[in-house]
Amino acid sequence: MATEPKKRTSKQPKPAVADLSAVREQIDGIDREIQALIAERALWAHQVGKAKGKLAAAVDYYRPEREAQVLRRVVDRNDGPLSDEVLVRLFREIMSACLAQQEPLKVGYLGPEGTFSQQAVHKHFGHSARGLPLASVEEVFDEVASGTADFGVVPVENSGQGTIQSTLDLFLTSPLKICGEVELRVHQYLLSRTGRIEDVERVYSHGLSLAQCRSWLRQHLPGAEKQAVASNAEAARRARNADDAAAIAGENAAHVYGLKVVAGPIEDRDDNTTRFLVIGRASFPPSGHDRTSLMVFIRDQPGALYKILEPLARRDISMNRIESRPAHGALWQYAFFIDVAGHVDESPLKDALGEIDEFAGDVRVLGSYPVAVP
Amino acid sequence: MATEPKKRTSKQPKPAVADLSAVREQIDGIDREIQALIAERALWAHQVGKAKGKLAAAVDYYRPEREAQVLRRVVDRNDGPLSDEVLVRLFREIMSACLAQQEPLKVGYLGPEGTFSQQAVHKHFGHSARGLPLASVEEVFDEVASGTADFGVVPVENSGQGTIQSTLDLFLTSPLKICGEVELRVHQYLLSRTGRIEDVERVYSHGLSLAQCRSWLRQHLPGAEKQAVASNAEAARRARNADDAAAIAGENAAHVYGLKVVAGPIEDRDDNTTRFLVIGRASFPPSGHDRTSLMVFIRDQPGALYKILEPLARRDISMNRIESRPAHGALWQYAFFIDVAGHVDESPLKDALGEIDEFAGDVRVLGSYPVAVP
Repeated sequence: MATEPKKRTSKQPKPAVADLSAVREQIDGIDREIQALIAERALWAHQVGKAKGKLAAAVDYYRPEREAQVLRRVVDRNDGPLSDEVLVRLFREIMSACLAQQEPLKVGYLGPEGTFSQQAVHKHFGHSARGLPLASVEEVFDEVASGTADFGVVPVENSGQGTIQSTLDLFLTSPLKICGEVELRVHQYLLSRTGRIEDVERVYSHGLSLAQCRSWLRQHLPGAEKQAVASNAEAARRARNADDAAAIAGENAAHVYGLKVVAGPIEDRDDNTTRFLVIGRASFPPSGHDRTSLMVFIRDQPGALYKILEPLARRDISMNRIESRPAHGALWQYAFFIDVAGHVDESPLKDALGEIDEFAGDVRVLGSYPVAVP
Repeated sequence: MATEPKKRTSKQPKPAVADLSAVREQIDGIDREIQALIAERALWAHQVGKAKGKLAAAVDYYRPEREAQVLRRVVDRNDGPLSDEVLVRLFREIMSACLAQQEPLKVGYLGPEGTFSQQAVHKHFGHSARGLPLASVEEVFDEVASGTADFGVVPVENSGQGTIQSTLDLFLTSPLKICGEVELRVHQYLLSRTGRIEDVERVYSHGLSLAQCRSWLRQHLPGAEKQAVASNAEAARRARNADDAAAIAGENAAHVYGLKVVAGPIEDRDDNTTRFLVIGRASFPPSGHDRTSLMVFIRDQPGALYKILEPLARRDISMNRIESRPAHGALWQYAFFIDVAGHVDESPLKDALGEIDEFAGDVRVLGSYPVAVP
């Protein structure tokens, strides 16, 4: 080894240009060390499993709060040259491999293989977890509840299309807990039958998707007619019927509807994301940077929601999201899904929840979980 | 750090069971070291790029033979606890991240996202390469030839269904070189409308898929009628029409045809694989364990093939595969695709090829490339 570990930061002068074989020798030495460290890490992880019980399956010692802490530390001490995102991915995979030594985690998702949901499973649990493709989001809830799957990953909102109400509604009747969130970037493509931009005179898409690509459309298809339709799938179906039409949709639609990719990704902002929730049967301790999802039921009385929110507001607990849903219960008439900052086991959220007027409503904690690490 | 790097092998006594926080501290220390080493590795890789030219894109310094050597070394020195396959995957990702620091590799494949081809791209090039989903295998060839993609990944044979002739035929007219191979395990599932094994009285599938699952069928469905059909997709289509029918097909077919997974994976041998070729514009030096794909054109004359093969056979050069195709040329009437052990730049293959009788036929080297690392 040419350098000491403690000198290994990008702040030291970069290695001088050497001949290729000398550089490769350096890299070989580094690889040997990395491999030895990964093996040692796996042995220690194995010890954690043994400490939890002789034949502990991964689900018994998987700790989302601990993984989030490890990844945040990776980001904190990163000073290049690799990006935070790349390093987080590498460490997710290393942790995933160490965890899967006995029985890997089984994670249910909305199949088939190849969906964004599967990508979310891999992003959050690494490729050593075993994904179980299921036919519906309901089935994901069922298989986790029955123990066939250790965890489930379900889509809950898209920065373009908003909240996926049907997923949220499953929490109304499910005892499962939210124990994580995953954010995944998604992309828009311009698709058409001919694949040639000069043929395009009309562009179909969901209104939100058209809005997401407005600048691109103005720049590249200023003369084309934009027509909002019910869904991106409907747009792709229409584009299939005419040579002068195009659809904005996910790349996947090109295959399903036999269209060609004209251009893409074409969304104006590259932060177009879908958010997934990780569901499981247990609650986990704080990670230091957590979010809590609450389901709040209230009577139809003036000021009920205000009374629920007041103890949160007074403590400056920030609220990321609030969605109202009909509750269909005898006592409570409205349900609200509310995401707030913090963990239920920690102040100030713990205090605020303890103070909520039980006559105003009923608060169920769906879960406290680490805020997604990029 | 509790231990010295040189002691880090699984041959030393495993760390004793300690309390959880002490183990986590150990792991945190290891992670810090791994991260520093990965950063240093990335800096050295950056130097390789610079040595090749000031603004070298990844394609300019990507060396498949070097990657294969690194991965073989990883396998050679692995003595647990993680499997070779897991370690190879981790090191692929580390190399991929180091390579993608400037401009990542662009790799074309048969889209859409989510296909086995995309999995093959990720397996071979890691997740830091940029995959380009394309509409056809022809388009993959075109985009690599034009330079839009740096490399392409195309399916060439399945251990169940045999060679994909249409892919091989593209080499008849393409100047592209084979510079790698990827092997991907694929799985078979039993699918039906009800999802209940007790309902199944008939099983449809392609004959080869039925054969692949023979033991499983004998054990679990001894009384069911087995019926071979043209394809697994056709089998799924038939299974959709009756409650007492099932299909053996890929898991993906469950979603496409609205079927439920009864059981799977159910193939008798877990080595059911699809083989992909990596195509590019350049040839690469030997990696030490290589394979060479040849396209041999011969006249329709007795003994022509024998004359071509003799110099190979005399040198004990093993042949993995031979496929004949009509050549449609004026001079040569038959084409054979032949895979042999070794690299064209090394003896004995180099000598054998130099000796082949030019009157017997014409030999084109499609490429010499590292044998796939698991």
